[in-house]
Amino acid sequence: MQVVRTPQEIRDLRINTFEGKSVGLVPTMGFLHEGHLSLVKNSREENDITVVSIFVNPIQFGPREDLADYPRDMDRDLLLLEQEGVDLVYAPQPGDMYEGNFSTFVEETSLSKGLCGASRPGHFRGVCTVVLKLFNIVAPDRAYFGLKDYQQYRVICRMARDLNVPVEIKGCPIVREPDGLALSSRNMYLSPRERESALLLSKSIVHARKMVRDGVRSCSQIRAKVLEILGSDPAVSVEYVSLKDACTLEDLQRLDSDGVLAIAARVGKARLIDNTLLEPGKE
Amino acid sequence: MQVVRTPQEIRDLRINTFEGKSVGLVPTMGFLHEGHLSLVKNSREENDITVVSIFVNPIQFGPREDLADYPRDMDRDLLLLEQEGVDLVYAPQPGDMYEGNFSTFVEETSLSKGLCGASRPGHFRGVCTVVLKLFNIVAPDRAYFGLKDYQQYRVICRMARDLNVPVEIKGCPIVREPDGLALSSRNMYLSPRERESALLLSKSIVHARKMVRDGVRSCSQIRAKVLEILGSDPAVSVEYVSLKDACTLEDLQRLDSDGVLAIAARVGKARLIDNTLLEPGKE
Repeated sequence: MQVVRTPQEIRDLRINTFEGKSVGLVPTMGFLHEGHLSLVKNSREENDITVVSIFVNPIQFGPREDLADYPRDMDRDLLLLEQEGVDLVYAPQPGDMYEGNFSTFVEETSLSKGLCGASRPGHFRGVCTVVLKLFNIVAPDRAYFGLKDYQQYRVICRMARDLNVPVEIKGCPIVREPDGLALSSRNMYLSPRERESALLLSKSIVHARKMVRDGVRSCSQIRAKVLEILGSDPAVSVEYVSLKDACTLEDLQRLDSDGVLAIAARVGKARLIDNTLLEPGKE
Repeated sequence: MQVVRTPQEIRDLRINTFEGKSVGLVPTMGFLHEGHLSLVKNSREENDITVVSIFVNPIQFGPREDLADYPRDMDRDLLLLEQEGVDLVYAPQPGDMYEGNFSTFVEETSLSKGLCGASRPGHFRGVCTVVLKLFNIVAPDRAYFGLKDYQQYRVICRMARDLNVPVEIKGCPIVREPDGLALSSRNMYLSPRERESALLLSKSIVHARKMVRDGVRSCSQIRAKVLEILGSDPAVSVEYVSLKDACTLEDLQRLDSDGVLAIAARVGKARLIDNTLLEPGKE
């Protein structure tokens, strides 16, 4: 496994070593967990070469967010990726990605406005910008994103389509702890007691899916139940509970087509998100 | 010479016909003149394959600008390009470039703010977005832009650097009529009398260059003289006369480093621009 820091090193590898081989890219901010590793496994199955980027992208954090505290453990990350058979790790420093007078941004202006975009202005602009840079640096055939960040997945699909980026975007299922907690690097902020409270997110999602199986189609009814479950624990501070069209992320009144139930909540210091597709046709 | 309309056709050609060959791209809005053809000639000299795009890009026009009136003559354009030995013309329709729910834009936020950007909000966002799309569709090794649109050239250089686009941006000298008028598709808006007035732009530029040769380094002095020349004809309505650092496009007080003198003015219905590098070290 090679570890490189500059775009030029990757470009040289693309030309000299990867020529004619299919390349999968897994963009990460490091502090890897089984969710990331499932993306790596998918990429390894579908491509000759798997590249993982590790970069805590400063421009996707707001001024009051946890950029400084965001967990990092490069040695452990490299060990895990080596074990997974990754071919190349791209681990730039902020100065490698953003020169002093950096001034160009990529902005998706529709899907990125609601949900997390409402409380995190500039977040998806930062995400789109760094992901497009990574696409241009690595030139992957396929790129892998976790569906836990469902809005991010949709925004990146739209960006790639709109800007004619020649890459196939793959969304991979949420990986959960045995008790249901969706894996996240930010779970490490949780105390044992807060972790108990955080379980309400996945529990409410399980309940919502059951309601759809039982024939409920009213989004306000589902949403009310989820809010009731989350509201049962004062340690859970809800930011949003939204039911949106799974493709356009527009508000949904009734589940006549596929929807996504998306939740964001604070538990202690951690801002957690979780979601599920609600597919009435499949239940 | 092949003419294609969809990104997929170009991608197929890239893979099947252009494989291993160097590709030069000349992005245009059509209604070609000798300025465009000089870009083609440069591309032909430096690349195996030359691709010219012809697309009047709606999103770089403001609501009160001349999108509907912008001159078009596809038959004549294709004839000229065939004569120049162009290999491929990419001529999409607006619907091919912008789907109904198109929502992603590329924005340069520094160099694009002054000069033409001040009076044309959204213009460079539209330019950057379409140029990045063309880069992704054509995947050129080099792309050719006229220095007549000096700010555009600098903005695109910055965009390509910031977003790690693997393309070399080439700026080609302004082509002028024998009497000095810089070639522009918008010159066709000029009546014979207006064309006479429009000559003041290039005349004032010639004068500014002479001042620099004579040792003048004060930008306000040069600017005042240019304004005086342009002001001598009431048919010329000046939008700006600016002296900027040639690289950063920041305001310049003294010509201690390379500057660019940039002019925008309306003559009749036509909005005209012209510029020159002022390089005190070279005079």
